[in-house]
Amino acid sequence: MSLVEVLTMGRVSVDLYPEQLGVPLAEVRTFRKMLGGSPTNVSVAAARLGRRAAVITKVGADGFGDYVRAALTEFGVDSAFVSTDETLRTPLAFCELHPPDHFPLLFYRQPTAPDLQLTSSDLAAAPVETVPLLWMTGTGLAEEPSRSATLAALHRRGARAHTVFDLDYRAMLWREDAKPFYRQAASLATVLVGNREEWAVLGDVPEGIDLAIEKLGPDGVRGNRGGETVVVPPIEVEVVNGLGAGDAFGGALCHGLLAGWELERMLRFANAAGALVASRLGCADEMPSLAEVEELLCSA
Amino acid sequence: MSLVEVLTMGRVSVDLYPEQLGVPLAEVRTFRKMLGGSPTNVSVAAARLGRRAAVITKVGADGFGDYVRAALTEFGVDSAFVSTDETLRTPLAFCELHPPDHFPLLFYRQPTAPDLQLTSSDLAAAPVETVPLLWMTGTGLAEEPSRSATLAALHRRGARAHTVFDLDYRAMLWREDAKPFYRQAASLATVLVGNREEWAVLGDVPEGIDLAIEKLGPDGVRGNRGGETVVVPPIEVEVVNGLGAGDAFGGALCHGLLAGWELERMLRFANAAGALVASRLGCADEMPSLAEVEELLCSA
Repeated sequence: MSLVEVLTMGRVSVDLYPEQLGVPLAEVRTFRKMLGGSPTNVSVAAARLGRRAAVITKVGADGFGDYVRAALTEFGVDSAFVSTDETLRTPLAFCELHPPDHFPLLFYRQPTAPDLQLTSSDLAAAPVETVPLLWMTGTGLAEEPSRSATLAALHRRGARAHTVFDLDYRAMLWREDAKPFYRQAASLATVLVGNREEWAVLGDVPEGIDLAIEKLGPDGVRGNRGGETVVVPPIEVEVVNGLGAGDAFGGALCHGLLAGWELERMLRFANAAGALVASRLGCADEMPSLAEVEELLCSA
Repeated sequence: MSLVEVLTMGRVSVDLYPEQLGVPLAEVRTFRKMLGGSPTNVSVAAARLGRRAAVITKVGADGFGDYVRAALTEFGVDSAFVSTDETLRTPLAFCELHPPDHFPLLFYRQPTAPDLQLTSSDLAAAPVETVPLLWMTGTGLAEEPSRSATLAALHRRGARAHTVFDLDYRAMLWREDAKPFYRQAASLATVLVGNREEWAVLGDVPEGIDLAIEKLGPDGVRGNRGGETVVVPPIEVEVVNGLGAGDAFGGALCHGLLAGWELERMLRFANAAGALVASRLGCADEMPSLAEVEELLCSA
């Protein structure tokens, strides 16, 4: 294949979406299967915007693992770095949809998930040092051996631009204090992305960061690059499903970083991509194209 | 509630059935949620035939656990003995439907299932000694503490009729030799039910067994009671989904045992109930009524 531009690493899941909206899980009758997991979705979003993308992750030796590879291929994402755990199941995520702001998840990732069993040898063939953009997540630090594999990959790369660390903090996945591991990973990144709670886990911005982004929810998004601070307001859309909006934002951010855009253009573009996905039922299968994002930006 | 006549113990699951037939799991787009788990289904089948039924089982503290209780109530099964494990998820079972004879399952029961965490204290309030029919399964012996709880319940009851031990052997759930535990449980039962492979796990019929049933698949079913042997041929139906047919057979067997039917009538009736469910897509939600079984027996 042609050279990868965007390489993400971490969580994958088969998301099972209710076909009945606004009811608790107990009352959902039918579910639709979708590709999910934040860094997986980021790679799909970047591919949809025309970037050559790949994801480093791990699935179970089951039909859902087959599905993950097939779906990635369908979305134009290279699945060469998807490995297989022989005993654990491919993780599932069930959600409830209570628009506009309540989207509870039920994870089937017990006793752990294949993507947290990634080791450095699973990454050996991946172009971690040379890829133009590497996207790592905080969830990848939650458990060994994924923690060591994530940190080793960041060391291999040596804080070269663009190295994005998506703070992506999920308290339920942590059994110890995340902060020391977040500090290590952040010190090897050039771009940090997170919401207010996630920034609180990390603390202040480490040396060497080119771009720090804080998602402000209803207040939009704030970016800081080399002393310049830009706040971009949210785009008003009717929210159908808030899940995946942050991943659309992430994929669009990758596109803007690689295009060398200035800060405000990049944040507006990523914001619009997130808004489009929030207005849609799907996530991975409804990531917006360049034309769709530009159209929303013109009309907003 | 009124006194329970049929009390089953063991496995429960939320079964997720493909809405697309004849395709591998990777290609299924949508799933329909159903109640599942063999002894759970047996209680539903018995209730559908007019018997007051209850199941001793355990679910997770999640929306699917809520669903299990709601579905049991809807089917007329008492859920008073359904307890909750605070950390494990309610188990899932995905299936593929390749009629007439290939119905592979993918279980999400890792690292173990709540129903294998049943303890004697979960059974303390259940009428194990006095219920007219107790239905236990081999899967309940696969792991502690369910193994001890199952054997303790059988000891409490003291081999009183009717005590059914459904051999229900699933090799994937066992990490050691099942035979010694099967021998113990069978020595405390009055009725044994299983297919050829399951009987091979148990060995010969222990002392004190009133009725031994071997399911012969395409050759029907054979029963032996007090020296009398009856073989009942299968009923020809177009198989849509073979899963759950054995549970319909089990619920019908409970009905026949409680009615005091003679062997041949009981086996013909149970056979017909199984055939009806095999000809239907659903399991728990499509258990046959008395009238439906009798109609098939008349037309066959």
